[in-house]
Amino acid sequence: MRREVRNAVCLLSGGLDSATCLAYARREGYICYALSFDYGQRHKVELDAAARVAAALGAERHIVARIALDAFGGSALTAAIDVPKLRTAAEMGTGIPITYVPARNTIFLSFALAWAEVLASSDIFIGVNALDYSGYPDCRPEFIEAYERMANLATRAGVEGRTRVKIHTPLLRLTKAEIVKLGRELGLDFSLTFSCYDPDAAGRACGQCDACLLRRKGFQEAGIEDR
Amino acid sequence: MRREVRNAVCLLSGGLDSATCLAYARREGYICYALSFDYGQRHKVELDAAARVAAALGAERHIVARIALDAFGGSALTAAIDVPKLRTAAEMGTGIPITYVPARNTIFLSFALAWAEVLASSDIFIGVNALDYSGYPDCRPEFIEAYERMANLATRAGVEGRTRVKIHTPLLRLTKAEIVKLGRELGLDFSLTFSCYDPDAAGRACGQCDACLLRRKGFQEAGIEDR
Repeated sequence: MRREVRNAVCLLSGGLDSATCLAYARREGYICYALSFDYGQRHKVELDAAARVAAALGAERHIVARIALDAFGGSALTAAIDVPKLRTAAEMGTGIPITYVPARNTIFLSFALAWAEVLASSDIFIGVNALDYSGYPDCRPEFIEAYERMANLATRAGVEGRTRVKIHTPLLRLTKAEIVKLGRELGLDFSLTFSCYDPDAAGRACGQCDACLLRRKGFQEAGIEDR
Repeated sequence: MRREVRNAVCLLSGGLDSATCLAYARREGYICYALSFDYGQRHKVELDAAARVAAALGAERHIVARIALDAFGGSALTAAIDVPKLRTAAEMGTGIPITYVPARNTIFLSFALAWAEVLASSDIFIGVNALDYSGYPDCRPEFIEAYERMANLATRAGVEGRTRVKIHTPLLRLTKAEIVKLGRELGLDFSLTFSCYDPDAAGRACGQCDACLLRRKGFQEAGIEDR
């Protein structure tokens, strides 16, 4: 039996999670349109990682959309605010950190929705994770469900009743260690990915921000080396 | 009794509807942050109108966010596709026209949500209209309701339960003639606004696209002259 070939838009930051998510979509047989954003983030080096990952995983196309999110400020990732370092798991478990970029996933998903509609695709992949995460509101299952419901009312497909938009979140309920294991199972070359919020001028990871700490914890718990 | 002064983000295209919506928000006592988009639209001249309207109505600030929506194509407003002319009311009432820009209002509202969050505002104004309109899915009440629900799960305020995001749509159930009358009541100088999808090189309205036809009909039915 031949599997139906379908297009999907995959959000790709270049980090461990989104790369694993893209690898997952590829294994599910989707033709993947990878979408990254140049939004004024201080860790712009992640876009090089995104390009490497998209090429390595055979994405059909990779677009880096430039969006002026830094015009609003309000986050340590886009404004002149220090990125917090060496936070404990307990600290990460309380409140929303200053690295939260207001409405970022809402905006990213909305661009994915636009591209999906142009491609006549009803499948969007996003590597959000609600377990080992930094406490961002737009990574929670209830947000994703509400987004999907809205998306089906926002678009041509929704009105014409042709298809239903589906927001795929294969990592949503995995721990970081489980994500690392899934990535290895999918043959992902982790060395292509980049997770740090606050790299130095040479593009080296700081090893101390939430993203670096969560990544290290994940590899340690999975018993896999992160080269 | 002194009214509480509150910030609001107001989407402003520079057309009749969004200008009336901004005038309404101002009369309601909001300090207004006007937000426009340079998204590769062929009728970029509307951004000049947006700047004039924002200034005339005393917006606290006006940002034109550059977003690469034209990277995806798929609409007569952003790609090399002819804008339909002289469509009848019956034709406008059937189906979604090629001037529909995929997920545009979803994207615009998402940027407004980001700015509102940075401003600690929970009020967003958008001049969508579900009566005399072009058949866009993202102008319908059910879309706005679903968006508002999603927005309250997407953001810091939603998680912390501080406030509820409100998407204000004062024009939603007005006819174009009623919008014109409201604009006049609010003292809006209509000559500052610009509605055409397909202006000529000198920035003059074509008089034949849906936006021009709906505007003319609105002024005629309101018995007001559009100078």
